[in-house]
This record gives sequence, C-alpha cells and structure tokens, in this order.
Amino acid sequence: MSNDSEADVLGANAAFYAAFESGDLDGMRSVWDDGDDVICVHPGWRPVRGAAALHRSWAVVMANTPYIQFILTDVAVSVRGDVAAVTCSENVLAAGDETPAEAFAGGKAVATNVFRLTAVGWRLWIHHASPVLSPVDGPAPEG
Amino acid sequence: MSNDSEADVLGANAAFYAAFESGDLDGMRSVWDDGDDVICVHPGWRPVRGAAALHRSWAVVMANTPYIQFILTDVAVSVRGDVAAVTCSENVLAAGDETPAEAFAGGKAVATNVFRLTAVGWRLWIHHASPVLSPVDGPAPEG
Repeated sequence: MSNDSEADVLGANAAFYAAFESGDLDGMRSVWDDGDDVICVHPGWRPVRGAAALHRSWAVVMANTPYIQFILTDVAVSVRGDVAAVTCSENVLAAGDETPAEAFAGGKAVATNVFRLTAVGWRLWIHHASPVLSPVDGPAPEG
Repeated sequence: MSNDSEADVLGANAAFYAAFESGDLDGMRSVWDDGDDVICVHPGWRPVRGAAALHRSWAVVMANTPYIQFILTDVAVSVRGDVAAVTCSENVLAAGDETPAEAFAGGKAVATNVFRLTAVGWRLWIHHASPVLSPVDGPAPEG
C-alpha cells in the first residue's frame, strides 16, 4: 500500500511500454510473470493465455509494428498486498503497413494491467487493452 | 488453488452475468467489492473507477439494455491465493433502441474478470470487457 509499492508498480508498468516501444522481446519477457495463467488481450483480440503463447503473440505484434510510441494518460494505480492494478489510456502513435489507424478509433486504447509481486519484483500477470470506440463515456451495451 | 476455490470463483463470475441479464442493480452491487479501486471497463468505454461511479455506470447500461443474454465460452479460471482471474468470451444476444449490433462485431466480446477473496467471499475487483474486432487471432497493433 505504500508509496514505494506504487512507485515500483508504475516502474514495472513503464518497463512494459518501453519494451514494446523498442521492440525488445527479451525486455518484454522480463516484464511478465511466468506460467500458464498469464493473460494478454491485445486490442480487438481474444485472450492469449500462458507465457509461451503470449510471447509468440508479442513477436507477431512487434514484427507488424515498425514504429509505435505511447503517451500514457489517466494513469491510476491500486496496490492490495502482493497484487496491483494499473489502468491507463494508451495514446498511440504508430506506423504499420497493414494497420489502418482508424481501426482503433484514432489510436486511443485503454488498458488494465495487473501485476503480482514475485521474488524478483512486480511482474505482469494480466494485460487487457481495448479500443475506445466513443469519444466520451456514455450509454453503451456490455456486449 | 483448490477446485473448491475455482468453483467458488466461477460461481461469482456466473452471478455477475446473472445480475446483468436480469437487470438486477442490487444483485450487481453484491457481486462487486467495495472501495475506490474497483475498476470496470465496458466495451469501448474508458475505465470507470470506484464503486460509486461504477454502479452509476451499471444503472445507465442496464437502463439502455432492455434485453441481454450471455452465452459464455472459452471460460478459464486461475486462482492465486486470494486473487483469481477469469477470462471468457461473451457471446451476446441483446436488444436496444440505440444499439447497432455491428458496433460489437456481431455481439462478441471478451472479458477479464478479477476477483478478490473477501470476508464475505469472492468479490469482483476488475471487469474489463472489449469487443472482438477480428474473427480470428492475427497480427494486430497494440494501440
């Protein structure tokens, strides 16, 4: 619950986006926890579960992302014991051969990142990112 | 880690969708944990944080959802101590005056639901649902 914990979690969160921006697969691997129960939902995707499948997905995503830069806004962090959740808006500058920018509503996504405190520090357990489809909050269906 | 825990978590997960299907605001409230750090991302929305704002959002969503039925598939659960994550595909049948069905790719969304074990059982901490934009997994950008 301490500010130190929050700072550590935000550092882990920043390391995740830094690894993605630099196309650093090893760095991305070191951000994540191991195991079969890690979860990654890329925007518009179905969930990818398990470290092996997850890192294959990152290899594919990075291979198809010649350039990407994140400007994070609305960053909020909650620490409860050895689990922490970060929500943030991902304001994205990207370039890709096959990437229509409008596919993600002008490059705006929101992410929920859940970290676990392990023997080697905070590691990412769940990353769920999704496109923002409306400019402002308002009535929308669940499904 | 026990099967009992998994069953309990899946029961809490089912209660969440049952409350939504029946438009039961009290039931929805009893599914969620309290506090300022609960997080809900409705499909296409920005995150809603905190119990007060979150339940207001459910009142709005339910008021705009005359009928909705979920058929959950690909349900997977992971329990780690007093935190558990469920991922599932939400196959949705819905009716709404202002709801273009195509807005959510044929009514298919995926959800990550994170529960905490509290003194009164497993309670929902994070619900993040997002539309599935492509029929199959494949290269996609993060943002």
